[in-house]
Amino acid sequence: MADQAVTRPGGRTARIRAAALKATLGELIDHGYPGLTVYTVAARAGVDKTTLYRRWGGRDGLVADAVETFGTAHADVPDTGDTGEDLRRWARSIHTMLTDPIGGALVRAVFSAGDSPGMRHVRHRFWLGRATLVRPLVERAIARGDFPQGTDVDNVIRHVGAPLYYRLLVIDEPLTTADADLAAAATHAAAQAGVFVPRSRTTRRPPR
Amino acid sequence: MADQAVTRPGGRTARIRAAALKATLGELIDHGYPGLTVYTVAARAGVDKTTLYRRWGGRDGLVADAVETFGTAHADVPDTGDTGEDLRRWARSIHTMLTDPIGGALVRAVFSAGDSPGMRHVRHRFWLGRATLVRPLVERAIARGDFPQGTDVDNVIRHVGAPLYYRLLVIDEPLTTADADLAAAATHAAAQAGVFVPRSRTTRRPPR
Repeated sequence: MADQAVTRPGGRTARIRAAALKATLGELIDHGYPGLTVYTVAARAGVDKTTLYRRWGGRDGLVADAVETFGTAHADVPDTGDTGEDLRRWARSIHTMLTDPIGGALVRAVFSAGDSPGMRHVRHRFWLGRATLVRPLVERAIARGDFPQGTDVDNVIRHVGAPLYYRLLVIDEPLTTADADLAAAATHAAAQAGVFVPRSRTTRRPPR
Repeated sequence: MADQAVTRPGGRTARIRAAALKATLGELIDHGYPGLTVYTVAARAGVDKTTLYRRWGGRDGLVADAVETFGTAHADVPDTGDTGEDLRRWARSIHTMLTDPIGGALVRAVFSAGDSPGMRHVRHRFWLGRATLVRPLVERAIARGDFPQGTDVDNVIRHVGAPLYYRLLVIDEPLTTADADLAAAATHAAAQAGVFVPRSRTTRRPPR
């Protein structure tokens, strides 16, 4: 892998990667997933398409990397010491991404692109990349005793985001900061009430 | 409107409507919204296409009626006297619809069909038809004192459904009855904690 010799930041590899991922997002937004090919990305990025094939394997690898990189770059994970405020700021950062013209168009392109295995993989990478970044927020809440031990961290994260993506992608209703604050507050109250502790942990007791 | 003379149940109008809506759902599931035309529906239903144009105005009217009719027919709104159990059963009925082969395919066809004004209208009719049916469930909870006065009924409904549609349509994760029970329990706890009472009602006081 001759390319590995030049992976320092700002090196040729980093420049090619940045150009390719930027072009991929642009093609995704302008033409959607069905219209995106390695050829159109190569032309837009000014990069040889054999380079793209070699490094990303093809269209789905490019799209997955571009979307995951965008998603994690736009994940603003707060640590204020106040769980309610942390969740509110996280929900606000989802709102900001979804209502941003680029972010909103990208999310629509990714999540309204039908149901191919390739797109499923892209969506899963997007979710996983962001969930990995935000998990410590919920883990800190458990460590502080704000949420009970055994709280399912990923379900807390899903419940903060779900109402926001639902408004944008499912029922097509305007998405406001009040919706973000509500999703955070609802999840916060439910988590404090112990709803996210799986039942088996709280109800199954060893026989005496 | 000569047709109005024969709108009795089981009459010719009812039979044509049933055939047209069934054919519309079938075309939507088999070929998606982009592939659906009044011509293909007319052929599948064995109904003249001028009849479809006259009665539904065209493709979007047909699809909206078919999807709304399906959505309300599959809305199983319980009234057990127990708010937590009512919400759980409602969430289970959403789970049943989304995991049913026909229901799931239809919901995917409707909500992954991109972003045209016609599809927005269809989605909104689907949501509105089902929300109208389930509102009394939440209103009974308020009347019983389980949820505080001023609770935003539509937001309670949205928060029960959001995590389920989110798993199916956004992050492509398997949807289980445990997810339905969790969405119901989380919304129940949040509503009991007063989260769905708009802030202005609880914090704005008239000056003394």
